[in-house]
Amino acid sequence: MPEFLKLTPPDVALETFLLNLPAAKLQSEKLPVIEAAGRTLAKDIYAIEELPAFRRSTVDGFAVQASSTFGASDSLPIYLQLVGESPMGGQPDFLVNKGQAAIIHTGGMLPEGSNAVVMMEYTQEASANEVEIQRAVSVGENVIEPGEDVKPGELLLTAGKIITPAVIGGLMSQGIQEVEVAIPPRIGILSSGDEVIDPYQTPKPGQVRDVNSYSLSALVTELGGKPVRLGVSSDQEEDMRARVREAMDACDALVITAGSSASVRDLTARILGEMGSPGVLVHGIRFRPGKPTILAVCNGKPAIGLPGNPVSALVVGGLFIKPMINHLLGRNTRLARPYVLAKLSTNTPSQAGKEEWFPVYLHQEGEKLIAEPIFYKSNLIFALAKADGLIRIPLDANGLEAGEQVEVFLI
Amino acid sequence: MPEFLKLTPPDVALETFLLNLPAAKLQSEKLPVIEAAGRTLAKDIYAIEELPAFRRSTVDGFAVQASSTFGASDSLPIYLQLVGESPMGGQPDFLVNKGQAAIIHTGGMLPEGSNAVVMMEYTQEASANEVEIQRAVSVGENVIEPGEDVKPGELLLTAGKIITPAVIGGLMSQGIQEVEVAIPPRIGILSSGDEVIDPYQTPKPGQVRDVNSYSLSALVTELGGKPVRLGVSSDQEEDMRARVREAMDACDALVITAGSSASVRDLTARILGEMGSPGVLVHGIRFRPGKPTILAVCNGKPAIGLPGNPVSALVVGGLFIKPMINHLLGRNTRLARPYVLAKLSTNTPSQAGKEEWFPVYLHQEGEKLIAEPIFYKSNLIFALAKADGLIRIPLDANGLEAGEQVEVFLI
Repeated sequence: MPEFLKLTPPDVALETFLLNLPAAKLQSEKLPVIEAAGRTLAKDIYAIEELPAFRRSTVDGFAVQASSTFGASDSLPIYLQLVGESPMGGQPDFLVNKGQAAIIHTGGMLPEGSNAVVMMEYTQEASANEVEIQRAVSVGENVIEPGEDVKPGELLLTAGKIITPAVIGGLMSQGIQEVEVAIPPRIGILSSGDEVIDPYQTPKPGQVRDVNSYSLSALVTELGGKPVRLGVSSDQEEDMRARVREAMDACDALVITAGSSASVRDLTARILGEMGSPGVLVHGIRFRPGKPTILAVCNGKPAIGLPGNPVSALVVGGLFIKPMINHLLGRNTRLARPYVLAKLSTNTPSQAGKEEWFPVYLHQEGEKLIAEPIFYKSNLIFALAKADGLIRIPLDANGLEAGEQVEVFLI
Repeated sequence: MPEFLKLTPPDVALETFLLNLPAAKLQSEKLPVIEAAGRTLAKDIYAIEELPAFRRSTVDGFAVQASSTFGASDSLPIYLQLVGESPMGGQPDFLVNKGQAAIIHTGGMLPEGSNAVVMMEYTQEASANEVEIQRAVSVGENVIEPGEDVKPGELLLTAGKIITPAVIGGLMSQGIQEVEVAIPPRIGILSSGDEVIDPYQTPKPGQVRDVNSYSLSALVTELGGKPVRLGVSSDQEEDMRARVREAMDACDALVITAGSSASVRDLTARILGEMGSPGVLVHGIRFRPGKPTILAVCNGKPAIGLPGNPVSALVVGGLFIKPMINHLLGRNTRLARPYVLAKLSTNTPSQAGKEEWFPVYLHQEGEKLIAEPIFYKSNLIFALAKADGLIRIPLDANGLEAGEQVEVFLI
């Protein structure tokens, strides 16, 4: 008879798991910045050049000496002599003295002598070589000084930052062409079950295709890891032990889907427990689908034992594989899970004492989003494949009622 | 003097843009399923095989004839003769008759003669060949019939669906090895500005590096498009017109960053207006940063004119490039933008009449997330590169106060 599991609340399980993971042993590689999108910075980035590199205008208008404008107003404007136009991309070859002004565009370089810019809106053409100033400016107004944005040597970005489009822009603005990024951790993915066959084969009676190796590979890739598909282990203890040991040696972490029967899941836990200390940290989570999840750390390497059914494997996988990969990559991301709010279409029962997740469709009804739960009998993968998101029913709730506002986590 | 812009609210601008886009002319290609993650289904997917393919147990327990258990209870159990164990991955080679039971695991095939499964929890070993049944089951209980999940010919997934890990799992469960996906639309990316140089060069006084071509390329790739970097156009009308025309011919859509001065932005709008009807739909959005954005559709091809400053280009780009690419890919995704809730750390002023977006850091303080706005003088790209997310201050608000709850859109 299988032993009864001591169920851990999901947030406690995650905390326990992360606390037992040793600091990431980061391996890194150099990449051209334009190929590094989505990767993780392995080193802090310091500024090489000052930004801006020259004194720039932040508006369209007229470069002046601020003192030339003192006292100017709508009713009592001041007239300044036009002495030129600051060229975009070049250096003005003239001076702006007291009583003079020069046309300048946003981003243009201030001519020598000028120290402020009057916005276009507060000026008027007076004649071909005179401009009317209707408002005074103070020294430095509408001007950004060299180095005001970035000073050489300044810390710009810290290791662990994901390389977003804005990070790529920032690196480019400094003329940085190569960047040191973390190498994706190798996540071994092992399916198990005597009934599970390669999906390219045709199942005989009693057999099912291996879905998890492929859906979890896609998940691992999406999350920034490198999936290593290790095929299907039988439920035989010796075979599974050998394959788990091989995987733990070859990879930085292991995800094993542990067959669907309780005895096989217990076997998985026992084998993971043999792989090194501290061993199995959590076996059983107050979570549905995915109660029999196993979290282990063995000699510094994390291992996750997921339930064999494909929906559980993916839903629980998202919950634990993501923070595990973030940790292995040295990412400094928060664990906040973004959601959209929607109105629940139907009463959705759940069992108190378990955090329950349901796949939902999202519909737009006027301004409102409607979440329609997808009920299913077995843990059908298409229930999840068709869904737009997942809703969470808290640990202590007895389900949710139609019309209630729910948080939908998009997938 | 530049003309004054008629500012459109951002949601109206987006609606106008999308309504004027013709139906996507989808080009598709065949890919192995395992290489198709993140792509978009170009055709509906119908079931080939029934799932499950055999009558399966959904629990661990004992396969029985339901009628053998009628009347069983804790206090008055019924004893059945053990006749075997259903093998995982195989077909049981024995019958279960009235008064008999067979061990079965979750996912196992029901033996001939049996029509229900009693859960392990409601049984007890009585002797080596007898099991005690403490609860009655009805016909079909804990059993899933062939085809109950999926029937051959059934519509499984519709065209326009993004290929998530669950979709890959679903396709694998049907033995589908190749899939028809939409070819990413070619999004031309053109920078403009006499002051803008290739980022691999060293700027001379007055020059700045081209940041937008690279940050927007990364954004387009992330959103599922194929960026085509077209370099930097000068601010000369003839040069820009020739390059825009070339881009509109060669690509499925154009994104142009339109220099930083008002006159150059007006030039961009004028040139986009010449590229075909209906032409410029929106010029100027009640949005900060990014007011002078241009949205156009020319002979069926969309074009977006973004402000030249890198923060505006990315923030507005995210707002309009994403739905544009979704449309071009024929995606059936909703436009819901997920967020996390956080407490604002500081008063954050804004101008009523404009929807304003601020980059923020996120900190965890106990259970709570704190959003700390990143204030910056010029539109410094590093303000966005360092940020964890963006907060939105609504059109009609005069800023937000410290301690208020804000929606943070992660980046």
